Amino acid sequence: MINIDLNSDIGEGFGPWTIGDNVDESIMALISSANIATGFHAGDPCIMRKTVELAHQKGVSIGAHPGFRDLAGFGRRHINTTPQELTNDVLYQLGALREFAALYNLPLQHIKPHGALYMHLARDSDAAHYFVSTLHKHAPELAIFCMHGSAIWREATTLGHPVVCEFYADRDYDLSGSIVFTRRVEPLDPEIVADKVLRACQEGKVRTVEGADIDVEFSSVCLHSDTPGALPLLQAIVTRLQLAGITITPPHQHK
Amino acid sequence: MINIDLNSDIGEGFGPWTIGDNVDESIMALISSANIATGFHAGDPCIMRKTVELAHQKGVSIGAHPGFRDLAGFGRRHINTTPQELTNDVLYQLGALREFAALYNLPLQHIKPHGALYMHLARDSDAAHYFVSTLHKHAPELAIFCMHGSAIWREATTLGHPVVCEFYADRDYDLSGSIVFTRRVEPLDPEIVADKVLRACQEGKVRTVEGADIDVEFSSVCLHSDTPGALPLLQAIVTRLQLAGITITPPHQHK
Amino acid sequence: MINIDLNSDIGEGFGPWTIGDNVDESIMALISSANIATGFHAGDPCIMRKTVELAHQKGVSIGAHPGFRDLAGFGRRHINTTPQELTNDVLYQLGALREFAALYNLPLQHIKPHGALYMHLARDSDAAHYFVSTLHKHAPELAIFCMHGSAIWREATTLGHPVVCEFYADRDYDLSGSIVFTRRVEPLDPEIVADKVLRACQEGKVRTVEGADIDVEFSSVCLHSDTPGALPLLQAIVTRLQLAGITITPPHQHK
Amino acid sequence: MINIDLNSDIGEGFGPWTIGDNVDESIMALISSANIATGFHAGDPCIMRKTVELAHQKGVSIGAHPGFRDLAGFGRRHINTTPQELTNDVLYQLGALREFAALYNLPLQHIKPHGALYMHLARDSDAAHYFVSTLHKHAPELAIFCMHGSAIWREATTLGHPVVCEFYADRDYDLSGSIVFTRRVEPLDPEIVADKVLRACQEGKVRTVEGADIDVEFSSVCLHSDTPGALPLLQAIVTRLQLAGITITPPHQHK
Repeated sequence: MINIDLNSDIGEGFGPWTIGDNVDESIMALISSANIATGFHAGDPCIMRKTVELAHQKGVSIGAHPGFRDLAGFGRRHINTTPQELTNDVLYQLGALREFAALYNLPLQHIKPHGALYMHLARDSDAAHYFVSTLHKHAPELAIFCMHGSAIWREATTLGHPVVCEFYADRDYDLSGSIVFTRRVEPLDPEIVADKVLRACQEGKVRTVEGADIDVEFSSVCLHSDTPGALPLLQAIVTRLQLAGITITPPHQHK
Repeated sequence: MINIDLNSDIGEGFGPWTIGDNVDESIMALISSANIATGFHAGDPCIMRKTVELAHQKGVSIGAHPGFRDLAGFGRRHINTTPQELTNDVLYQLGALREFAALYNLPLQHIKPHGALYMHLARDSDAAHYFVSTLHKHAPELAIFCMHGSAIWREATTLGHPVVCEFYADRDYDLSGSIVFTRRVEPLDPEIVADKVLRACQEGKVRTVEGADIDVEFSSVCLHSDTPGALPLLQAIVTRLQLAGITITPPHQHK
Repeated sequence: MINIDLNSDIGEGFGPWTIGDNVDESIMALISSANIATGFHAGDPCIMRKTVELAHQKGVSIGAHPGFRDLAGFGRRHINTTPQELTNDVLYQLGALREFAALYNLPLQHIKPHGALYMHLARDSDAAHYFVSTLHKHAPELAIFCMHGSAIWREATTLGHPVVCEFYADRDYDLSGSIVFTRRVEPLDPEIVADKVLRACQEGKVRTVEGADIDVEFSSVCLHSDTPGALPLLQAIVTRLQLAGITITPPHQHK
Repeated sequence: MINIDLNSDIGEGFGPWTIGDNVDESIMALISSANIATGFHAGDPCIMRKTVELAHQKGVSIGAHPGFRDLAGFGRRHINTTPQELTNDVLYQLGALREFAALYNLPLQHIKPHGALYMHLARDSDAAHYFVSTLHKHAPELAIFCMHGSAIWREATTLGHPVVCEFYADRDYDLSGSIVFTRRVEPLDPEIVADKVLRACQEGKVRTVEGADIDVEFSSVCLHSDTPGALPLLQAIVTRLQLAGITITPPHQHK
């Protein structure tokens, strides 16, 4: 692998509030794809515009990062929603971001659902089917960021809709290939994370929490901007990949 | 005058709630331009999609009807907002509606700010200037519905941005040409309203609350869908205009 | 049974919006207990105050009707919330209503969770345990309206916390004693509903959708104010019960 | 002056978001009165409960800090609201906080409106009159934190409602006694602020931006928790006052 995408969620403040280490600007200088929060779980119109402008300045490709209508829960709480409702909620947010992107003549590269919505579309075939079908008719060029093998990935693959599979730099995997949410006391070690990412890029393998290796298929590495120490983690990843001759470029530039 | 537009605010429910007489479908059959609520003062993604679909079926031209972020106050309460903030709030809502319009291959014809935002842009030159300048660079073809002589009208006219001036069928005027909010006990009489509209179309004049006539300049007649008895009022207006040989067509079809 | 409570959800508008037939005032004249919406799924401070005032005028006992933070979904969508979060959300809403009740020197009689929160506390023992334990320490006199045999009923019964079991006049039951959500084309027939309620009061039995009879244990009859035709349904129930010598009184007056 | 109150706004996060330096716990150890955000401009039920618990642990007196319904603007934007609406909004929030206070057997000491609501009640006599009259009938013991000479102060004084006048440690005054919002490049110097506060306490005077001295009347010093460097500022104030033999105690303990 010579080219890899590096994506992060950006613009996840709301009004006067910040989240995580508040280092969007520094993160934007390191990544190739920015998932921009679109207002339902985080992000407001002023933040969205500023974030799009920042991406434009740094030459970062952008995508919509829509979530459930859940400011209080930051979109991390599942809301029992019909496929139609959630698809309409996503279209609304997608259009809102497109408008700001148009202000800066930036095309949208991708869409990546956030938090509980991401998980729901990874598991629920009905929701994934309705969502992907609608998107495919409407925006056939908009790549979906997702997990390899997930419900949304299957639907997109079946329809021939472009997908970008992700590897989670700041999450642990189990033998099933699923993400494991482990409560950590200490922050992640940048060198260990960078090692893990490099190995995944070069060998396509990751060590699971059970201690075995599994295959991982991806063309984008995700690091969450609200992971404590996100910035040093990203810096370590970028340095390690560059030393190994791997170029960080957005998926639409991968051949 | 042979062609006149007839516009109404549509899709102003939220979630399970309705407002006014809940007669959107019947109103849509009578008007030529629909101002679709875009979520901040009313309207949610499901209602927006349904409303766009309805406009598509009835052949009604559509526009965005953005308001202040004020569900509790239905966007009728002024919020002290900078020109930048309110413009970003509008762009967000505009993009959201565009996305649903694109689903049905409908172009947006216009934008009409709602309630307190409409009044603010009619009075505040700074806000109007920033808003119109941004819109003009970004969407030079999107007509602004406004009052003749208002701040937003002056800014648009100066920049050569298309405007559509409105006549308010269900409001009273005073000598200054301003709208007067009179608290009514009884609903408006459809025949009187139809007379008023016809005279305005034919003679360009309206009788003020003081009893004198003033000139009114407009190419669209507005009737608010939450005015009590909105449907019979619209029916009376449509019948009266048609009998007088006046055709109801959206502004983009006026020559 | 000589005394029975009759409860209904009241004050479920928001801002300018109404729901159902908008007949709160007429309903308030018929019921003995009002479940007042407390702002998260419906109800705003002005509506809450007006509703408390109305209950005060009509001599109706009041309770809090808190829901999930979900205006767009009217609290009918389950939100994945920890027991602590949902309990804090309920305490917040409970206190808000208490403040308005205090304005009119009205005590709160009860609490009845709304919609998806009602169902969640009926099923989830952990949530029910945390919620009831907190409430019991804090407000040991506040009766919980619930379904006989539900998780929240079990927790309250175990702790000796007062409960009021409900019979749903406008819902169908199945053999398990659960409510069945049947999509109706036609509105409910007031005479049939009144018959069903009278029989339940006199015999403690209801005919299920399968055609058999089951026992129902309750001291309050619930009729939802947003059921189409809520007012004629309530009128028929009240008339039928009164003719049979059954008095409609709030639970705190039952001996 | 031997006793002085020291108050700060606390609990102004929302969901996962923080504001300012996120040092509530350290601030709570220094102040005598905490103004707890009540959900409309900041604060959510979980944060409110945690903040009340913290105040209980530190022995800090608490008050409600209600704002306009404006999360996006942090309650700093004026919303054009009737006296009735804003009073009902405040009662709602007040009751919500009371419920959490009751959980910890804490009485509410005071109420201090936030941001634009504070300014509105300082200027608008109609709003101040309706608000104070309602509060006075309902909660005659709840002290109002306000500016000496403001509209709300006049209404409270006229009715004999308890007030606590404030001195703003982190704001500049002009000759009229009003607060001047000066945009600063550098953070405030703790020693200069401590000097200013000590002088105000001992001499009842403050130097204005024009360079002259004016009298200030107060029994509480306010330092905003979102002022950059709030914690070192508070520490400097506390040290300076203690060295001068001034005791920091909540107003209800002042004789």
